[in-house]
Amino acid sequence: MSSSSTSGATLADRVLAGDPRAIARAISLIEDDEAAAAGLVGRIFARTGRAYLIGVTGPPGVGKSTLVDRLVSGLRRRLRTVGVVAVDPTSPFSGGAILGDRIRMQMHADDSGVFIRSMATRGHLGGLARTTDEAALVLDAAGKDVVIVETVGVGQDEVEIARTADVTVLVLVPGTGDEVQALKAGIMEIADVFVVNKADREGADRMVASIESTLALESFGEGKWRPPVLKTQATTGQGVSELLETLDRFREASAPQQPERRRGRTAARLREILSAQFGRHLDDHVLGAEERDRIVEAIATRRLDPYTAAADIMRRALNK
Amino acid sequence: MSSSSTSGATLADRVLAGDPRAIARAISLIEDDEAAAAGLVGRIFARTGRAYLIGVTGPPGVGKSTLVDRLVSGLRRRLRTVGVVAVDPTSPFSGGAILGDRIRMQMHADDSGVFIRSMATRGHLGGLARTTDEAALVLDAAGKDVVIVETVGVGQDEVEIARTADVTVLVLVPGTGDEVQALKAGIMEIADVFVVNKADREGADRMVASIESTLALESFGEGKWRPPVLKTQATTGQGVSELLETLDRFREASAPQQPERRRGRTAARLREILSAQFGRHLDDHVLGAEERDRIVEAIATRRLDPYTAAADIMRRALNK
Repeated sequence: MSSSSTSGATLADRVLAGDPRAIARAISLIEDDEAAAAGLVGRIFARTGRAYLIGVTGPPGVGKSTLVDRLVSGLRRRLRTVGVVAVDPTSPFSGGAILGDRIRMQMHADDSGVFIRSMATRGHLGGLARTTDEAALVLDAAGKDVVIVETVGVGQDEVEIARTADVTVLVLVPGTGDEVQALKAGIMEIADVFVVNKADREGADRMVASIESTLALESFGEGKWRPPVLKTQATTGQGVSELLETLDRFREASAPQQPERRRGRTAARLREILSAQFGRHLDDHVLGAEERDRIVEAIATRRLDPYTAAADIMRRALNK
Repeated sequence: MSSSSTSGATLADRVLAGDPRAIARAISLIEDDEAAAAGLVGRIFARTGRAYLIGVTGPPGVGKSTLVDRLVSGLRRRLRTVGVVAVDPTSPFSGGAILGDRIRMQMHADDSGVFIRSMATRGHLGGLARTTDEAALVLDAAGKDVVIVETVGVGQDEVEIARTADVTVLVLVPGTGDEVQALKAGIMEIADVFVVNKADREGADRMVASIESTLALESFGEGKWRPPVLKTQATTGQGVSELLETLDRFREASAPQQPERRRGRTAARLREILSAQFGRHLDDHVLGAEERDRIVEAIATRRLDPYTAAADIMRRALNK
């Protein structure tokens, strides 16, 4: 215990010093060992909260990774250090995330001001929101000026991850317009900035118009940020400096709302930690694996209903 | 209390009798009042487990709703009754889901063998997985032979919802092939059947080939189902009977694995119920809103770290 806490302290110190190997090790810890991660986060937490968090989300195939790489290059030219957490919907068994990192890191291989890390969406201990969030905390504590969280998908989970950032960029590509209709208000609501990437494709202007007309249905109050719709070509870099300027403008415009936004993120993080700890309490002190299997089997075969089962488990868990 | 439990019993009886108004009322209850939902589910649960659950998922704009409507018509021609739960990423404030239902129901307006219900992804008490799952239970208890759960998105949440079905259909459209690459193994793994919809579009065959070559990288054991890749045009109905036949074949082929799959779904449902009940316990008996706000503020301003806060809350919650 004392040796692990010593090495934990050492790791935390090395993260705070910005050591890339320590950052990598810390993020692996967060993925693999929730209890050790808790200790680490406790040690670095007071030194976090300084990085600006950019969430980049959108459906697969819209070119988010290329766009994020361009943002990284642009931020480096502005002398900001950057960390990237890319949530990658790859099987933990395929090694795809690691391969992806290697390819992506080559672009910034000689630049110690950049750290890129992919996280697989499966096989995590604890939820994806926790691991993503804590990886961003590590990069923040390591002194990165900007942390980009890139999530693939337009699902609820990804949206939740992206919207806890200081600014959320939703990336789409020119399509038939069905996409925008299908996205509808629920997804539209979370975006602070829209990007139509692959803007050289046919239908890019129609796509921009389609998003703008959807936005026109929403009411934006006096002084409230109206999400702009930008066009980019991530492969050539076109439109990327406009995007960076827009992010700066948003940062300034949204400063009064940021404390509230960060409180929302904090509340969500606390809820997730509590839920995970309760799950562990059940596993360790209330239900053995065998009894759990018996209960699941009884429910699956309809001899027991899940709420009656849950009420009984809760009584035991809470020592009532 | 006794009057609400009486009306609960009445509602449950009417659901079991297949009354469409009772089904609608029961699903609203599930969305709005988790405690009442628990009572209802307890009353109908023993009569569930008979419907065949089809999960249909995929990115926005691929034509899932149209395809599901075609599946409904096809199943009706085969004299099966059908329930549809469509998870709609619409703001709960926009009324989009309700409007969507009206439009979609018109197609089957005179058919008492069909019940379609959209659920918004926001503003639910409890998680989306719970509400979707319980809405499917209601349709199951109401005697529908087949229940289709349609989720928009390729996010982790949607995938989890879809994969708890008896069979999962992943719908894609012809694209540049980036999409398939971006989907990768993590998402590919969950599909039992792939559908390339809008197959009249350019690149449909390339898309089929691309999915098949991705599947070729996976190993399928002896006697294990190898996900087929079908082409459909939902707008004309082309390919839909082949899809229905494929679903029948899957049902037969996967019968030995179904109990295990249903146990997995049951375990996930129980976990979610327990987690929600613990959250309610915290709100009702451990942390007042004011104290919670104070703790969140202390974390947000870095005076307290979230794990120390969580450890303290857990001690109090568990009466230790």
